[in-house]
Amino acid sequence: MSQFLNRRDDIVTEAIDGLIRTSGGLLARLNGYPSIRVVLRTDWDRSQVALVSGGGSGHEPSHVGFVGKGMLTAAVCGDVFASPSVDAVLAGILAVTGEAGCLLIVKNYTGDRLNFGLAAERARALGKKVNVVIVDDDIALPDLPQARGLAGTLFVHKIAGALADTGASLDAVTEAARRVIAGTISIGMSLSTCTVPGSPQEARIPAGKAELGLGIHGEPGVEQVDFSGARGAIQSMAAKLAPTMRDVSHVALLNNLGGTSVLEMAVLAYELTQSDIGNRIKHIVGPAALMTSLDMRGFSVSLLPETETDMAGLCAPVRVSAWPTMVAVGEVQVIDLPQGVKPTAAQASQNDFARSVLKTVCDALLVAMSDLNALDAKSGDGDTGSTLAGAARAILKDLDQLPLNDTPELLCTVGQTLSQVMGGSSGVLLAIFFAAAGEAASRGEDLQEALQHGLSRMQQIGGAQLGDRTMVDALWPALNALHLGLKASAVAARKGADETASMRRARSGRASYVSAEQLIGHTDPGAEAVARIFETLSS
Amino acid sequence: MSQFLNRRDDIVTEAIDGLIRTSGGLLARLNGYPSIRVVLRTDWDRSQVALVSGGGSGHEPSHVGFVGKGMLTAAVCGDVFASPSVDAVLAGILAVTGEAGCLLIVKNYTGDRLNFGLAAERARALGKKVNVVIVDDDIALPDLPQARGLAGTLFVHKIAGALADTGASLDAVTEAARRVIAGTISIGMSLSTCTVPGSPQEARIPAGKAELGLGIHGEPGVEQVDFSGARGAIQSMAAKLAPTMRDVSHVALLNNLGGTSVLEMAVLAYELTQSDIGNRIKHIVGPAALMTSLDMRGFSVSLLPETETDMAGLCAPVRVSAWPTMVAVGEVQVIDLPQGVKPTAAQASQNDFARSVLKTVCDALLVAMSDLNALDAKSGDGDTGSTLAGAARAILKDLDQLPLNDTPELLCTVGQTLSQVMGGSSGVLLAIFFAAAGEAASRGEDLQEALQHGLSRMQQIGGAQLGDRTMVDALWPALNALHLGLKASAVAARKGADETASMRRARSGRASYVSAEQLIGHTDPGAEAVARIFETLSS
Repeated sequence: MSQFLNRRDDIVTEAIDGLIRTSGGLLARLNGYPSIRVVLRTDWDRSQVALVSGGGSGHEPSHVGFVGKGMLTAAVCGDVFASPSVDAVLAGILAVTGEAGCLLIVKNYTGDRLNFGLAAERARALGKKVNVVIVDDDIALPDLPQARGLAGTLFVHKIAGALADTGASLDAVTEAARRVIAGTISIGMSLSTCTVPGSPQEARIPAGKAELGLGIHGEPGVEQVDFSGARGAIQSMAAKLAPTMRDVSHVALLNNLGGTSVLEMAVLAYELTQSDIGNRIKHIVGPAALMTSLDMRGFSVSLLPETETDMAGLCAPVRVSAWPTMVAVGEVQVIDLPQGVKPTAAQASQNDFARSVLKTVCDALLVAMSDLNALDAKSGDGDTGSTLAGAARAILKDLDQLPLNDTPELLCTVGQTLSQVMGGSSGVLLAIFFAAAGEAASRGEDLQEALQHGLSRMQQIGGAQLGDRTMVDALWPALNALHLGLKASAVAARKGADETASMRRARSGRASYVSAEQLIGHTDPGAEAVARIFETLSS
Repeated sequence: MSQFLNRRDDIVTEAIDGLIRTSGGLLARLNGYPSIRVVLRTDWDRSQVALVSGGGSGHEPSHVGFVGKGMLTAAVCGDVFASPSVDAVLAGILAVTGEAGCLLIVKNYTGDRLNFGLAAERARALGKKVNVVIVDDDIALPDLPQARGLAGTLFVHKIAGALADTGASLDAVTEAARRVIAGTISIGMSLSTCTVPGSPQEARIPAGKAELGLGIHGEPGVEQVDFSGARGAIQSMAAKLAPTMRDVSHVALLNNLGGTSVLEMAVLAYELTQSDIGNRIKHIVGPAALMTSLDMRGFSVSLLPETETDMAGLCAPVRVSAWPTMVAVGEVQVIDLPQGVKPTAAQASQNDFARSVLKTVCDALLVAMSDLNALDAKSGDGDTGSTLAGAARAILKDLDQLPLNDTPELLCTVGQTLSQVMGGSSGVLLAIFFAAAGEAASRGEDLQEALQHGLSRMQQIGGAQLGDRTMVDALWPALNALHLGLKASAVAARKGADETASMRRARSGRASYVSAEQLIGHTDPGAEAVARIFETLSS
């Protein structure tokens, strides 16, 4: 699988610089490329406790997306899925740590523990106050001695960050972080592995299976389970989470591991909120891509019991690019349908002239059926005549129910009938024509003006211009000549229809897919139908 | 490819309900499931011009993610990649339109034009003021008579939405929308097709190729081009966009089509901002998934010339879930590395006792090399002896450069040497041990306390507890007995080392991957090394 990346060695530095350039001036980096990749806030004055996190890259927007007021002070970025060096972490600590000290938030992977740990020692040797907390929120294996750090880490960033932003002491911030770590549980599921740059994607998960209980580096899940869809996925995760949950309200963090579509994440949110543990989930962060595993089609759920203190931290404002607002999970508000969606049938009325015109037009279309079909066969699927004949039969059948003595209503009703009977684009376009004409007539425009208004609206919506080889080429001149009488309209319609035979290109409608050579010499069937109607009406 | 979805017929309604439940009460829907799927603002009083958009689903977060104060008033959602019905659109219009009227923002696809167009006519017939604008920002084919609507539509939502929110008239909002449409250009590129629920993914794009100039429904791009990475991708898009751009500042919208990793999007942002057109891009929205094509690994770039009016609209605050803040594109701010990252060499000094202790320890490790290798071969890769011997040789070689008369400095310097010479986890852990001990000694703790402090820090970072079958099992009792003399320490270390031979489980380090049966009867090589050192020192 190709990826939108360049040289492997440059991926992380290019990604960081891309994020800094699009940060609105809020982020900067240390001058240590390529080995030292540290991103930090530009609005930092060292007066508060600094929060430094990081780890391997490939988890974007973690961690650069969470650097900013109210969350991290700096992020130290290793290569893809590789811990940053001790020097890089130390540079990050020294760059941001003032008298108030620094808290390192480290996910529980050996490399991260060691490199961040040694960097902390070196920083202490240089006189800095540094504390370290290790996040181990994964519950894939309940008795795993060394649980991994997953997306639950973001609860720690957010709550510790909010506290630090109030000017709290290093000990207080550290204690808050430890409390959040102790309360946070997470589990992940995926349908695919991820594509590590430069390596082929591993085809480890068979069709119909999902991996449950995975880390964030493409490592295998603790088990492969049968996959039956979003509902089953959430159920199996809820079953893992439930025994560890206390009987209190929780906030959930629903994290896209990178390759799950936004549509899927919305469905997973739906399932999570109405799952067996849904009634204990009162607030949610996401769904969003927060701590990804490159392009993995997977997601994770993290839970934290709600306490007043922690909720205040989660709600506190932040100035970072990737933290979504936490919201209360709510019921679906359902609002009654407005009146008028289903059109009410118009009152039938009599008008001999209108009846006669309608009947003449419909009869003309029935007569023209086979000719129109034959013309359509040159550029389309040969059914224009049949479609129009079907519409004509429906109108004839409805004649006694039509509001014949109310021109605006009549136009609208004919349009509604056509949209139901004809179907497809042509039915909708004619419905628009008649509806717009009816609306104009109801505003007092005369019939010519009203029909021209309808045509103009049909053109606007359908996109067909004069010369595009459609019925417009006959209808436009016919309506334009209507004040001169039906005879003049018929002549104009015929001339317009005949001209379509020499138009080389159909710019709209189905004939636009046919080559010019096939079209030349054949009249457009829609334009021909219009010409026949006006010729019959005027004879 | 499995997806996190349930029954095909329920996808859109479940996704909508998921989004509403996680909207924090800002969204509601009409009571028209399954055929009428309309999402609307809950804080809407009809006093302003309503903005209604929508279309097929599968483009999430479009359009529900943009419903809210300052953008859309309602979104009408069709099935995946299918236009909503006329009735659904009409319901949406009627539900939100007051005296001020309604603007329909429609992307230029035949189905959407027709269904939104007819719904507009019906709404007008019911007395509503409704305008329609058609977005056609795609420039894949410069002379395409019917250009498609792509992610540039979001510029229209944002700017028209901001204007409507000021109480502007329908005509003014419509004119603004038309102006934005006229100025917006977009083009897309992808490396994969998308997975339409229920259909297999089309394998249309061969390895090494990308499709350029595509819509948002998985339809083929206008051309297949050679793919050479993120830089080439942006270059080929810039080449398409440049001829249509005016020589003014532009705002770019960088859109993830759904399956591109966040890491890739960051690299694309980097390339876009320094491409041939980068100097004309002064502001950017994204990178973010804004108008997706399900899970397509692709992206699109939309551009709008900057005018004072439009920039004000783009900057105006919104209350929607999916609009990212627009930011000014900036240079990468680079900050000098802090002092102290590279440790300065300690001043050499003489102390015969320290020299003698160090030499004794190193000699003991050289003598023990083959025994320790043999022990390690039982549970690891058989190199513990060689690794420690290498470290011993390095210390011996450096003896004359060491600060032998400054215990804190000596401990730190030994730690630094070990982390450089030994590499890997063991080197870092010993470096942490010595650095933490040195830091404690510098605070005035005596040697026993300092070394115990180092051990405690090493355990915290490395995670090894007593009984975990590591060097800790010998080192902890040895240090604990140090105030009783070296003899007592040696006895304690030996006892602790010998006990590792009966420990059934290694909970930390490399031996944790080896089964209990293989471990039993063999002393841990790290613990054995510690015992040998203390035995030699006390003899």
